[in-house]
Amino acid sequence: MTPDVLQEALDAAVSAGESARGTTSPNPPVGCALVDDHGTVLATGATSPVGGPHAEINALRHAGERARGATAVVTLEPCNHTGRTGPCSHALVRAGITRVIYLTADPFKPAAGGADYLRDHGVEVDYRATRVAALQPWLRSVANERPSVTLKFASTLDGFTAAVDGTSQWVTGADARAFVHEDRARRDAIVVGTGTAIADNPSLTARRPDGTLFASQPRRVVVGKRDLPEGNLTRLGFEQYASPEEALTALWHAGARDVLIEGGATLAVGFLELGVIDAVQAYVAPALLGQGRGVLDRAIASTIAEAKRFHTTSVRQLGEDVLIEMEKY
Amino acid sequence: MTPDVLQEALDAAVSAGESARGTTSPNPPVGCALVDDHGTVLATGATSPVGGPHAEINALRHAGERARGATAVVTLEPCNHTGRTGPCSHALVRAGITRVIYLTADPFKPAAGGADYLRDHGVEVDYRATRVAALQPWLRSVANERPSVTLKFASTLDGFTAAVDGTSQWVTGADARAFVHEDRARRDAIVVGTGTAIADNPSLTARRPDGTLFASQPRRVVVGKRDLPEGNLTRLGFEQYASPEEALTALWHAGARDVLIEGGATLAVGFLELGVIDAVQAYVAPALLGQGRGVLDRAIASTIAEAKRFHTTSVRQLGEDVLIEMEKY
Repeated sequence: MTPDVLQEALDAAVSAGESARGTTSPNPPVGCALVDDHGTVLATGATSPVGGPHAEINALRHAGERARGATAVVTLEPCNHTGRTGPCSHALVRAGITRVIYLTADPFKPAAGGADYLRDHGVEVDYRATRVAALQPWLRSVANERPSVTLKFASTLDGFTAAVDGTSQWVTGADARAFVHEDRARRDAIVVGTGTAIADNPSLTARRPDGTLFASQPRRVVVGKRDLPEGNLTRLGFEQYASPEEALTALWHAGARDVLIEGGATLAVGFLELGVIDAVQAYVAPALLGQGRGVLDRAIASTIAEAKRFHTTSVRQLGEDVLIEMEKY
Repeated sequence: MTPDVLQEALDAAVSAGESARGTTSPNPPVGCALVDDHGTVLATGATSPVGGPHAEINALRHAGERARGATAVVTLEPCNHTGRTGPCSHALVRAGITRVIYLTADPFKPAAGGADYLRDHGVEVDYRATRVAALQPWLRSVANERPSVTLKFASTLDGFTAAVDGTSQWVTGADARAFVHEDRARRDAIVVGTGTAIADNPSLTARRPDGTLFASQPRRVVVGKRDLPEGNLTRLGFEQYASPEEALTALWHAGARDVLIEGGATLAVGFLELGVIDAVQAYVAPALLGQGRGVLDRAIASTIAEAKRFHTTSVRQLGEDVLIEMEKY
């Protein structure tokens, strides 16, 4: 296969994995592409919801007999253990796959060893270390034994999430808001503080611009001790925890691997002070207010040198707004 | 000429104009490219400092006899009047240019009419309305009869330009700071308030990362009534005006067409309230402070609907930081 043809197969595997985000926890959203010697993609597969087949198995089923002699490109090292499903490494050998290219080593001890098994059974194995975006939250969660936490906020250029009168609809425009909803559908849980839950009466659902719901909906989580009045959350159902720590522990045990903190300023500081913010999504609107409600509700550093800094991984314009995505150093 | 070949000539003209920014006021930084029938760029020229030749004349001089029969691409309609130099329209005809393509109509009444003169003298004239970035400040200044004003600030994600202890060095990284200095060299004046001048002891010069000065230096301007103590500005020389209005009037009459407001929060509100901020440059650092010195020192809107909004024209990553450039709607 030429490098160009190989890149197509890699892209197909990455894209299949991306499509499964938000539906696979506690399993990782993996993608698999089967390609023949000419580089033709025979089939792709992604991780099914928990209890269902892994990406490799789905791809093998789609390909059928054509899989014999093919190359499998997988975003994560094929698993080697029998959990709710059988080991993918064995299934690949049985199907007659002759070469496996994987992009991420499996850090989950009980499942690792797939590459060794494949090699021992005559399959050519090629590890091409690549940063696969869809796997990052899951990889962080396995490393930390808690869900990956992303802090999201939408603010003006001068850092306000609401005006002095409390109005916050809408800081950002329609394109940014649509992107937020698509992003929610890729998460396992959306978390807000009781202050935001009471003041804004949010639904915390992932909706299309026409108001219809995406197929995959995140858990709706409220952190704090106050009771919520009747509203969207009491109607739709939600979980409540007393503190960020309790929320993360409960969500981890419930299988959530990728959670989004959506508000407000007090909760954001709570998670920052706990040291568990792994990523930040800042939606910046080209607007100035001069005064209003801040992103955080108190100082977390008193000098520039002590500011909490992140590593910028992506910058994109969404209509008039800008989404800056960052990760922990 | 094929469209591809034409694009090269347009790019050459635009790029020549861009290179003259900061050196031509009160004249516009115009670029000109002369191309033969095969699309080969014969010569380029840009506006010389005031009193010197315009872009077309410089290009014609570089091309010499080869200009005969060539096409001239000019970012601005060739001038038709005798100011400090002769009319470019006449020079193009004399040099035997057979076709002129220009990208912006001349809004400056005394100089307009170049296209008509050229047509009357048998030159094919083609106006291709294009937004030429280098000309925007000058065009706005001619339309408003005051310098174009750009508000620049560097802040954290949560909108702080300094920490609670007053430290502000450095909010942004080396790449962003280098870009700020290149940008200063393209401006006619840098303006700060007396508060910033006294607190930060700035030089307001345009420097390379090694500390050496760019050839073109902006005017150093301080707005406010307080006297400055001995420091970089008293050593280097500066102009002082009592108010934003006085500064803009004086700078306009002195020939400045493109000025940058660099600090601080009080001066920014002064210019915003005067309604003269034409563009904004926000350098956003991926950092959080929670509290500190804001971009503006008081509310300019009390509801989200009344926020001062701008149109986003460019977004770029500079190292870890993000530069969002905006213009007035």
